[in-house]
Amino acid sequence: MTEVLFVLLEEYADWEAASIAAELNQLEGFTVKTVSNEKQAIHSMGGFSTLPDYTFVEACQKEFAALVLIGGKSWRSDKAKEVDALVEKAKQQGAVIAAICDATVYLGSIGLLNDQKHTSNQLQDLQDYAGANYTGANQYVEVQAIRVDNLITANGTGHLEFAKEILLALQVKPEKEIEQWYNFYKLGYYEAIKQELRNAGTDHID
Amino acid sequence: MTEVLFVLLEEYADWEAASIAAELNQLEGFTVKTVSNEKQAIHSMGGFSTLPDYTFVEACQKEFAALVLIGGKSWRSDKAKEVDALVEKAKQQGAVIAAICDATVYLGSIGLLNDQKHTSNQLQDLQDYAGANYTGANQYVEVQAIRVDNLITANGTGHLEFAKEILLALQVKPEKEIEQWYNFYKLGYYEAIKQELRNAGTDHID
Repeated sequence: MTEVLFVLLEEYADWEAASIAAELNQLEGFTVKTVSNEKQAIHSMGGFSTLPDYTFVEACQKEFAALVLIGGKSWRSDKAKEVDALVEKAKQQGAVIAAICDATVYLGSIGLLNDQKHTSNQLQDLQDYAGANYTGANQYVEVQAIRVDNLITANGTGHLEFAKEILLALQVKPEKEIEQWYNFYKLGYYEAIKQELRNAGTDHID
Repeated sequence: MTEVLFVLLEEYADWEAASIAAELNQLEGFTVKTVSNEKQAIHSMGGFSTLPDYTFVEACQKEFAALVLIGGKSWRSDKAKEVDALVEKAKQQGAVIAAICDATVYLGSIGLLNDQKHTSNQLQDLQDYAGANYTGANQYVEVQAIRVDNLITANGTGHLEFAKEILLALQVKPEKEIEQWYNFYKLGYYEAIKQELRNAGTDHID
């Protein structure tokens, strides 16, 4: 079973984790594990009490295919420093590293956004917080989400684009099916069907 | 503090709860409470272990503004029958009753979808499961989400439309701001800004 680790700090952003966790955990061969500073319940922005599966120390002993850093209100606190070793472990393993919203600012602050194209909520804010450790402004792109090699970043409204890039990076199913999954949730059931029909019509004409 | 109760059964659908929970729980004066059969941890489709705040029995003793029934894989099990009393309590209180995805099928099965316009994932499936207790087919509409008086229903891809209707029903802020919130997450940051600018331009011309 391939494990995907979701890093959740206190006051994590529910919506940034929800779509990708549900899709991944329902796929044959994949399982989602939540990771935090301690084993006691943490609380989402939405008021949900979540019991982490692993502490960061435990997670460092695991093999995993992706490390997903979920945004929220604690990425600028001391608690975030405890994630450093797990990110290092992910790099050593060649795991996908995916960060959304304020978790991207954390990645910038530990020098991981200097060499590849990436995004965040706002460049100026990223620069202000990450300081001298961030020298990647020339690689910053204003998009919902972007994936370059094993690095995925997204802004806080890009939860579905973030999910799509993670599914693509992990090659969980054919690209066309991932695109259909994305459209289903992005456009909604009725609009997605209409688009499918339009595309089928275009294919036919071609 | 106005409480909004989220009913979560085993294997609940993370994404159907996430956006609306986070928005509501961050609003001044509102707090989200999770409710399930027992106090022990339940598990989302995404593999998150969630500790409920209340059991259904406890929740029946509370005052609440809305009862939000989150879809998932247990609404056709015996566990769902334990929700009946809480739905009855919500009706007595005049609370908003909001159901998404398979939770709408549950509402149909207890006779709550017969008098007002509503939606679900699929009419035929709703009819098949709800049986004789459902006589509302002539009120069924094929939309992402719909609100009539205190009843809100949505299909499983309509999590943001579902959220918008709950925010509107609870009148948490001016309608225009709720629409902006919806566009921000539906369209994403960059597209939402473009739309705002277009609308501002149109306003100016008018």
